[in-house]
Amino acid sequence: MFQTFDEKTIPETAKDRINSLREKMCIQNIDAFLITRNDAHMGEYVSERDKRLEWLTSFTGSAGYCIVFKDQAFLFVDGRYTLQAENQCDKNIFKILNIPKDTLIDCINKKFQKSAFLAYDPWLHTIEQIEEIQSKKNESIELIEVDNLIDKIWINQPVSSKDLMVPHILKYTGQKHEEKLRVIGNILSHAGHSDVILTQPDSIAWALNTRGTDLIQTPVALCFATINSKGIANLFIDQKKVNKKLKDHLGSDVKLHDIKYFSSFLETLTGLVRIDKQRAPIAIKRILEKAKVAFSYDIDPVLNLRACKNQIELEGSIQAHIRDGAAVVEFLSEIQYTSADFSKDEIELVKHLESKRYATGKLKNISFDTICGSGPNAAIIHYRVNNKSNRKISFGDIVLIDSGGQYLDGTTDITRTIAIGPVSEEVMQANTLVLKGMIAISSLKFPKGLSGRDIDAIARQYLWSEGLDFDHGTGHGVGSFLSVHEGPQALSRQNNVPLEPGMIISNEPGYYKKNSYGIRIENLIYVREISKERSRDGRNMMEFETLTMAPIDKNIIECSLLSELEKKWINNYHSIVYKKLNPILTKSAQKWLKTACEPI
Amino acid sequence: MFQTFDEKTIPETAKDRINSLREKMCIQNIDAFLITRNDAHMGEYVSERDKRLEWLTSFTGSAGYCIVFKDQAFLFVDGRYTLQAENQCDKNIFKILNIPKDTLIDCINKKFQKSAFLAYDPWLHTIEQIEEIQSKKNESIELIEVDNLIDKIWINQPVSSKDLMVPHILKYTGQKHEEKLRVIGNILSHAGHSDVILTQPDSIAWALNTRGTDLIQTPVALCFATINSKGIANLFIDQKKVNKKLKDHLGSDVKLHDIKYFSSFLETLTGLVRIDKQRAPIAIKRILEKAKVAFSYDIDPVLNLRACKNQIELEGSIQAHIRDGAAVVEFLSEIQYTSADFSKDEIELVKHLESKRYATGKLKNISFDTICGSGPNAAIIHYRVNNKSNRKISFGDIVLIDSGGQYLDGTTDITRTIAIGPVSEEVMQANTLVLKGMIAISSLKFPKGLSGRDIDAIARQYLWSEGLDFDHGTGHGVGSFLSVHEGPQALSRQNNVPLEPGMIISNEPGYYKKNSYGIRIENLIYVREISKERSRDGRNMMEFETLTMAPIDKNIIECSLLSELEKKWINNYHSIVYKKLNPILTKSAQKWLKTACEPI
Repeated sequence: MFQTFDEKTIPETAKDRINSLREKMCIQNIDAFLITRNDAHMGEYVSERDKRLEWLTSFTGSAGYCIVFKDQAFLFVDGRYTLQAENQCDKNIFKILNIPKDTLIDCINKKFQKSAFLAYDPWLHTIEQIEEIQSKKNESIELIEVDNLIDKIWINQPVSSKDLMVPHILKYTGQKHEEKLRVIGNILSHAGHSDVILTQPDSIAWALNTRGTDLIQTPVALCFATINSKGIANLFIDQKKVNKKLKDHLGSDVKLHDIKYFSSFLETLTGLVRIDKQRAPIAIKRILEKAKVAFSYDIDPVLNLRACKNQIELEGSIQAHIRDGAAVVEFLSEIQYTSADFSKDEIELVKHLESKRYATGKLKNISFDTICGSGPNAAIIHYRVNNKSNRKISFGDIVLIDSGGQYLDGTTDITRTIAIGPVSEEVMQANTLVLKGMIAISSLKFPKGLSGRDIDAIARQYLWSEGLDFDHGTGHGVGSFLSVHEGPQALSRQNNVPLEPGMIISNEPGYYKKNSYGIRIENLIYVREISKERSRDGRNMMEFETLTMAPIDKNIIECSLLSELEKKWINNYHSIVYKKLNPILTKSAQKWLKTACEPI
Repeated sequence: MFQTFDEKTIPETAKDRINSLREKMCIQNIDAFLITRNDAHMGEYVSERDKRLEWLTSFTGSAGYCIVFKDQAFLFVDGRYTLQAENQCDKNIFKILNIPKDTLIDCINKKFQKSAFLAYDPWLHTIEQIEEIQSKKNESIELIEVDNLIDKIWINQPVSSKDLMVPHILKYTGQKHEEKLRVIGNILSHAGHSDVILTQPDSIAWALNTRGTDLIQTPVALCFATINSKGIANLFIDQKKVNKKLKDHLGSDVKLHDIKYFSSFLETLTGLVRIDKQRAPIAIKRILEKAKVAFSYDIDPVLNLRACKNQIELEGSIQAHIRDGAAVVEFLSEIQYTSADFSKDEIELVKHLESKRYATGKLKNISFDTICGSGPNAAIIHYRVNNKSNRKISFGDIVLIDSGGQYLDGTTDITRTIAIGPVSEEVMQANTLVLKGMIAISSLKFPKGLSGRDIDAIARQYLWSEGLDFDHGTGHGVGSFLSVHEGPQALSRQNNVPLEPGMIISNEPGYYKKNSYGIRIENLIYVREISKERSRDGRNMMEFETLTMAPIDKNIIECSLLSELEKKWINNYHSIVYKKLNPILTKSAQKWLKTACEPI
């Protein structure tokens, strides 16, 4: 079982821990210490060893930071996590503040009118983050960089993973890493850069065609790397994670070094070195400055390359989605959710679904903790069920299940909302409006060059017409056996990265009624160009193709709200789902799917 | 008759004029002189006296600039005007370049590798424009500011208008100018500014509740002004344009000065002066710098205030649109465009339409030259008919008519596309797709805070679905008896100004098939808040209300492509049009309107 349901932290541990921290601060003459949820790689997941924020504050959310003064401590979290932080943390110790209303800058500027030392670990904050603080803080505040104070006081801090880095073979990647390195080298050449420093393991994993198991749910090995303009890479990784198979795979274009030599290697760079200020820790900048290595800020060149999946990756994703969809269908058919004597709780559903994915024999991990919310729990957008929040599902409830799997050939992410018995007209209407938006994106055609920002409204227009909306983006990028949340593209008003052929994104409008119910319908889709022959005016147009294969619950569709085109889309989608999944299902699931995919 | 159809310029005049200019350049040791289409007020229209670019190059388009070297001359125009410039200019003298592909910077940097003097009139270029050149030019190029060389060689240059500036009364403005000045004063106070310098006559016209007749089609008097943080204004204007009535209107909060004292007055300012670098001529900056007056860049505070029309202005606009719509209906009913023996040309239609607006007795001017394009002419987005381009309209053509009027109570802008007899299925389909987009915007509800950028796609989705699109924004802001193109808001992917209650914008999707036909359907609409009681989830939602009142040609609607909601919108719109216009129409127009407004 990949997912667990225990509450991992209790508020009571904080008192002793913060006292130890303040002792250290006192000894080092530090007035404030900044603790972030990041590790040095600035990704979505961190290893157990790097969960410093959680260890200190007991807050387990996926984003946030804490500032500890000698007499006060503030935990900054965003709207998704306010309630959770208040439940998990000792409020006598931590005051919970809200991003973006409350800012660290205001907090420290208010606190320190006179001279004060604010310390942080330079490996755990990006260049952009620190330079923002630097530019906005009171002059009296001095920033100082220290070895991490938490690491000094954390007894039994988990050790770093020694799991192997493994090759990810051509069958799945579709492009040799030597070729990728050459492309990156050319990008560097054109930009006048001698080398790029890569600090994100998923960038390195893509560039070198390697994977690992250091982070839950993102299949990467923690490491650093540089790539030069000739397409030669230097990989810095704990040598315990390296075996002959990996060495053979990496070949002569990738020089292997132990991770402890990373800093000293950076000092030897010559030429103009490229770093991504939004992603690289400020420690990198310090090393380069000290060694007088010239550098220039620019985006990690892997991001745009990785985002556009090649034909082999897309083929892999299609296969992964058929396999994953079949598991979802086995699950849906077995739980018999429309039956009047349905009697399960959220955790049972999560376990049951995971067992079906596991039974495919190909599941490497789930791609994130399944969100399984029934009734009011589903209205909490980032809900994760645990033993305490677990809810018995009642007849008449709707249940939102957002889940995904990591397979060697692709990463999946699917949400279905299902009705346990009959539901109210209001729920039927809301579900149908969400579905209309989801169909509108699925069947959208749009001119080349547009970004998520330009088309996000398409998914919302039907909800808007009834005064409704949802407070999250319409979709995020997705990796190929990599992060389930992968930039740079997204379907969001905040995203202006042009949508390019091969980009995989989620299409997941929703509707959430606080304390009542939540709805989301999510398919993964990918961008493809419409051939010129099919384009009447010779314009360069793009469209989406759907990857996710699983029926959408027809019991909560109000057909009278659908246009003929929308009905046609659903029937066509269901006929494809049936065709693709039927051959690999058990008999009973086949029977269930047949009904689920019948035309409306 | 306001509109004329003569070609105003001929290519042959350029030769002598450019020779004179080069003589002057030689005498003053200038290697290049920059001529812009702007006057010192940087608006869309310029007076005859300020048409320096047109005088020199013969190019009459509404945007462009020219750089004259000793041996070469380049005219920069955008895609709308490439063809027109090539027809109007002597191509032996001017090489036509395309904005944004070709840039002035590249042109001068390529031309001048060695030391050279590039001269310009500092009153005719904005701070932003000049500073961009300054930052990107070769070091060897020196920018120098001179009195305008064109003015020195232009024999018979028209004199400045002596037309009166007139009060625009409370009945139309809904807010006293003293009150507006106080609001502007408060904005300045809050921003820490002592004064703002206003260089745009339509900003000043709004702030002081005055109008004028110095520019064709925009009812303003040319002038400059300053307003201070106490809400006291200083108005700089040719004293011949001032009479007692105006003085009485302006009262004690507005100090009058002759325009010749503007520069010397600026030198006397103390405190921190606000200037809008996108709108103020660089000459203003030079004056302040020389006099050591502190200044800060910020947007003209009038823009956002003026954009949100008050209840009186909206009421006025509604009345103006009923009057204007009635004129349009009289016109449409009289030309009998569906009759098989229809036989008119484009100019006849323009004249006929203007005569109907004129007959209202309230028309102050047309708000822009009517675009009346039939057949292939309509595919030219900025087409203006003249005696040469005028085209006899054939049975089976469609005609695009985009026109508007300036009335004391409001500015109108309407486009209708009409079919002269039966048209092809292709045209029917394209017209219906355009209409669907126009209806989608008209009936859209959307969350507060969104801008044109966020909803522009709503108007295009149906065209996109067939691989079609249009290469202009979906809509522009419109003034109240002021400019028909008024910022800061717009329905465009380029515009991120939040849409606020009271903003008037056009909603004008189109479709243009080169060398074949053009379609556009345009209504003016305004933004209003949806009352909380009507908003189910308590979200702040906005919607549009339609101002324009004239039927949409049903003969080119393919009803099978419309949803029930779209049909309902059209029928409802036509029933309102009928109700509002019928009482003020002639008998024959009433009869025509009845048929035109019958439900589909």
